[in-house]
Amino acid sequence: MQGTMLYGPRDVCFEERPDPTILEPSDAILRISATCVCGSDLWPYRGIEPITQPTPMGHEYVGVVEEVGSGVKHIQPGQFVVGSFWASDNTCVICQAGYQSRCVDARLMGAEGAQAPWLRVPLADGTLVATPDLPPDDLIPSLLAASDVLGTGWFGADAAAVGPGKTVAVVGDGAVGLCAVLAAKQMGAERIIAMSRHEDRQKLALEFGATDIVTERGDQGAAKIKELTDGLGAHSVIEAVGSQESMRQAIRSTRAGGYVGFVGVFHDMQLPGDELFFAAVHLHGGPAPVRRFLPELIDLIWNRKINPGKVFDLSLPLEQVAEGYRAMDERRAIKALLRP
Amino acid sequence: MQGTMLYGPRDVCFEERPDPTILEPSDAILRISATCVCGSDLWPYRGIEPITQPTPMGHEYVGVVEEVGSGVKHIQPGQFVVGSFWASDNTCVICQAGYQSRCVDARLMGAEGAQAPWLRVPLADGTLVATPDLPPDDLIPSLLAASDVLGTGWFGADAAAVGPGKTVAVVGDGAVGLCAVLAAKQMGAERIIAMSRHEDRQKLALEFGATDIVTERGDQGAAKIKELTDGLGAHSVIEAVGSQESMRQAIRSTRAGGYVGFVGVFHDMQLPGDELFFAAVHLHGGPAPVRRFLPELIDLIWNRKINPGKVFDLSLPLEQVAEGYRAMDERRAIKALLRP
Repeated sequence: MQGTMLYGPRDVCFEERPDPTILEPSDAILRISATCVCGSDLWPYRGIEPITQPTPMGHEYVGVVEEVGSGVKHIQPGQFVVGSFWASDNTCVICQAGYQSRCVDARLMGAEGAQAPWLRVPLADGTLVATPDLPPDDLIPSLLAASDVLGTGWFGADAAAVGPGKTVAVVGDGAVGLCAVLAAKQMGAERIIAMSRHEDRQKLALEFGATDIVTERGDQGAAKIKELTDGLGAHSVIEAVGSQESMRQAIRSTRAGGYVGFVGVFHDMQLPGDELFFAAVHLHGGPAPVRRFLPELIDLIWNRKINPGKVFDLSLPLEQVAEGYRAMDERRAIKALLRP
Repeated sequence: MQGTMLYGPRDVCFEERPDPTILEPSDAILRISATCVCGSDLWPYRGIEPITQPTPMGHEYVGVVEEVGSGVKHIQPGQFVVGSFWASDNTCVICQAGYQSRCVDARLMGAEGAQAPWLRVPLADGTLVATPDLPPDDLIPSLLAASDVLGTGWFGADAAAVGPGKTVAVVGDGAVGLCAVLAAKQMGAERIIAMSRHEDRQKLALEFGATDIVTERGDQGAAKIKELTDGLGAHSVIEAVGSQESMRQAIRSTRAGGYVGFVGVFHDMQLPGDELFFAAVHLHGGPAPVRRFLPELIDLIWNRKINPGKVFDLSLPLEQVAEGYRAMDERRAIKALLRP
């Protein structure tokens, strides 16, 4: 087959790669229906996260099961499945507590390279969730969103204790931030403030349920959130960027006793202890345990209650994957969907 | 009257000070029954937290109400009261959410100097809680503990989501850490691991409900906690020191999805973002909203269900306050009680 490899900064190739095969009894092989480029793929693409060798890319995927290993009990060939970017056994005590991304046997799917027509998924029974039937084509973008950006935004909202009556602020207007807006709306938030200065993203945020848009950033953004909340700050803030500035903005936008859910992968960050101490907020986040939420998310998508697939504003044939990276890098696209 | 002043590192004086008087209608004046030296008083005493001018000391107190301002409705002269080290109105939306230490009108009691025979307490109705009657003398140390170290340890356990069936680790064996052990026991924890290398404190930790003692520190301490918990880490960890090393030890001792409650005042701390991200723990803490817990704590003490006053292993006349500081600084005492 041909698959996607990153050789160095802005050097993406779609090239000959070995066909994946069953290596362990718990494996499944998927024929990929759709995959995509993640905001986190841009870190190594931009050279901010160094890579030391040519690296297979992609960790978001939906597809049809082609073959399963001898140990797979529940997932069957022919099923359409959604999986998380972490493979997990879903049976260990950490998984059972809802932290499948930190399963005692967790495997990062990135190693497999999902930006390809075929994919090996380890721990198939624990990782994959089948849809009720083969999905209609127009549901595929939303199901694909569930495998990472929706699941991650959802976890951010869950970690920020979003609920009815709450005022929620979302820092970051990428696909994850926009999905966090959608999640907050589904969880019954009273007021949802999207922090964005890009018109196309503001528009989608409003469509997903945002009630207010704040264009200011950093301390000015935090001051604006306080101004909108009687000087107190939001009950719940979702941090979906991962920079020092955005995390500070999130903490300063939260009221004492409130909650910050952080899901942007932290880069070069040092949280100043004294500020954290006197902020008296709750902090929770990290790599999203998407698997915890998949059954509920698939159900909402299947019944057309939510349409997170709208974050894909560019759709390309898989072999044009390099253009997908370029479009996202240059902010011409929020998120690029790729079809083999 | 005479009261306690800090002039600089290790320079404590008990000297003539103005008698406190009603300054605002919400004030009360207390005749202090007992006060004490706090672990946090040692930061400026040791010169680690610089002071710029002679500073009145002390923020823990119990006593009898002598006089109240014209706006005080509920607290009455003659009552025996316990108060927190933060004065709070207990009516604003932040107080009502249980974060009285971050009340919109919060005042730090330290400014008043509680290591004295008389004390002005602002916002008396919101800050003070009366006992059912004048207490017997042997309950006074425990009631005094409620005003800070017990309330702070209790908040740490609450922030760390301690509960039945949980394995809890406590980093720090000062009075707050020991009270956190007591709180974890009361909250029904199944296993309570006290991290201590001092025999007298280990003994009190066991008396307060610890089931295990770990003497290792830092990464070795965290490794020992993992060893005791099937390699996973504790469900709940209470950080009661406030140093970079102890906070790292706390995070590394916690399982993914677990909870760190931090109540040691942070000093010179920078939390590394990448470790925090991938730890996937919950973090909560800061200045304890002791007022939230006071009614319950007073009830437990009044009915002799708990005896946190045992943290006071040195009792001195108030005028010997300087010896109290010395004894705690030199670790000859866990905590020094002072009686006017």
